[in-house]
Amino acid sequence: MRSSARVHGKKATQVAAAVLGSVLLIAATNKTLADDPLSSWNDTTPKKAIIDFVERVTKPASPDFVRPEERIATFDNDGTLWAEKPIYFQFQFALDRVKALAPQHPEWKNKEPFNHLITGDMKAFLAGGEKSVMAVMAASHTGITTDEFDKIVKDWLRTARHPKTGRRYTEMVYQPMLELLAYLRANGFKTFIVSGGGVEFMRVFTNKSYGIPPEQVVGSSAVTRYQFAADGKPELLREAKVLFVDDGPGKAEGINTFIGRRPIAAFGNSDGDQQMLEWTAAGSGARFALIVHHDDAEREWAYDRKSDVGKLDKAWDEAVAKGWTVVSMKDDWATIFPPTK
Amino acid sequence: MRSSARVHGKKATQVAAAVLGSVLLIAATNKTLADDPLSSWNDTTPKKAIIDFVERVTKPASPDFVRPEERIATFDNDGTLWAEKPIYFQFQFALDRVKALAPQHPEWKNKEPFNHLITGDMKAFLAGGEKSVMAVMAASHTGITTDEFDKIVKDWLRTARHPKTGRRYTEMVYQPMLELLAYLRANGFKTFIVSGGGVEFMRVFTNKSYGIPPEQVVGSSAVTRYQFAADGKPELLREAKVLFVDDGPGKAEGINTFIGRRPIAAFGNSDGDQQMLEWTAAGSGARFALIVHHDDAEREWAYDRKSDVGKLDKAWDEAVAKGWTVVSMKDDWATIFPPTK
Repeated sequence: MRSSARVHGKKATQVAAAVLGSVLLIAATNKTLADDPLSSWNDTTPKKAIIDFVERVTKPASPDFVRPEERIATFDNDGTLWAEKPIYFQFQFALDRVKALAPQHPEWKNKEPFNHLITGDMKAFLAGGEKSVMAVMAASHTGITTDEFDKIVKDWLRTARHPKTGRRYTEMVYQPMLELLAYLRANGFKTFIVSGGGVEFMRVFTNKSYGIPPEQVVGSSAVTRYQFAADGKPELLREAKVLFVDDGPGKAEGINTFIGRRPIAAFGNSDGDQQMLEWTAAGSGARFALIVHHDDAEREWAYDRKSDVGKLDKAWDEAVAKGWTVVSMKDDWATIFPPTK
Repeated sequence: MRSSARVHGKKATQVAAAVLGSVLLIAATNKTLADDPLSSWNDTTPKKAIIDFVERVTKPASPDFVRPEERIATFDNDGTLWAEKPIYFQFQFALDRVKALAPQHPEWKNKEPFNHLITGDMKAFLAGGEKSVMAVMAASHTGITTDEFDKIVKDWLRTARHPKTGRRYTEMVYQPMLELLAYLRANGFKTFIVSGGGVEFMRVFTNKSYGIPPEQVVGSSAVTRYQFAADGKPELLREAKVLFVDDGPGKAEGINTFIGRRPIAAFGNSDGDQQMLEWTAAGSGARFALIVHHDDAEREWAYDRKSDVGKLDKAWDEAVAKGWTVVSMKDDWATIFPPTK
């Protein structure tokens, strides 16, 4: 017993040391992870540029210090915070909605462009161009109250699955960008979405998915009409009339009209974000402009100058010319999507 | 000396007691004032209703508890946060601007309605009705960049004086409302302005005057156009085209489009606020709707059903019918304007 105890004692010590070592190692690793708010970003140029910028504008002694209330950061949504392939997710919502409504519209069987959607002839549908798209957007997004629309979007986001990944659409957000949003907010930034997408569509999920509340979402919008329901309560009807298109130059205009301050940092991925980045970068003091380049066909999609969705051409040239930060999803992001629940 | 000392000693004690009493009294008064965040409100029904509502929605054990992020409170500006007589202050700005621009526009001498302004014939000017007003608004508010407009408004607010009080316009804010804004924010509310006034005009002073940052100001807006200045920098040109009219039904629509959440409390003073108050009050859970009634001809102005500025008629009837809180400036406010600096 005694010699065995000694033997075991010795072994136990070794085991304890080994275990303790592992624990310390794990603790150290966890500490490193916990200490790195951008752990899904590889240690390449973009991550360093982000951290450098944030430190420059937040350290009180820095010549580039910016007061917290002026730390406005704006983010495009489609292709910047969540994926946008094979088609914009909001357009997929519109198509699904038209299909769901088809039984109530027997006349659609003989009516362009709805007939093509009912028979599933996407080629014929797309031949109709923008006119067809607008018809589908109107049929799916208007003629209902804001409360009804909110409920329909909620239901769709809960049930619909992405055709390629099988994930819910809200699970196709980019993990590195979630970390970036949180990192900026931890450093006193106020984060906004400035997207061509519908403002009411986005507001359904931005708070939960990105930590961005409804009042910090700028987007395209329809005219609404204040009226009274049968029960005498007021309601807002979504009309088939565009109020504001928050895309391209509209992003700079929308920032001014809806936010009223020029951002000091802006994040986008396509030519639709070019003016937002320009407008941001042209302000005085330290500025940060970043473009996400979709170049990872394996883990996501690879597209840029020739894409019909999220085309990145002129904004890329300007980014290179002006020294904006360009993120390679392939090289700069360790992870693309968050783990599914 | 000794007896004198005794006499003086006695006197000194009495004096000390009296002084100490005064000090304690003053301290007690100061404490009461400091303890009362609504010290410019008399202890009448509106003040009690405000405090009762805030306690109901903020106490965690209350059945009416509202999470801080949903504590949205919206305020009209003209007639609710600052005065609006004899004419809307922004319209006075427009008139002053036209006068300042007149030397650069010799053609105005023979052009309606500008000729009447140059000769000071307000009766002839007002005979032109809305058309004349819009012409003056366009001439003073558009065809310049957003940066230029910002500077012009700043200069005007610094130098212009109210014709009756001689105060700067930003000194004609209502002290009780400043206290109310601060009280709500201290209780986790997010305070917004929702006004028929121009959003860019208001944003120049709302942060300093009310503690409301630009991104929490909703108002009427002009279309802007993104373009490049001669130096190659982007700028936004204010066009003579209305984007959004944030008045009447437009206030409920604007709240939905710009904020994206329904307020739980709303504050106004005229028929232009009726739909904002209705929309707010019609939500589920505890709600608060308040109307400021201008009935103090001595300290401010007295006007309601027949006024051409800030008409309060239908909204007053609805307030009475629905039990909204109606503030009598005369009876419920101990102070109207803050001390001048």
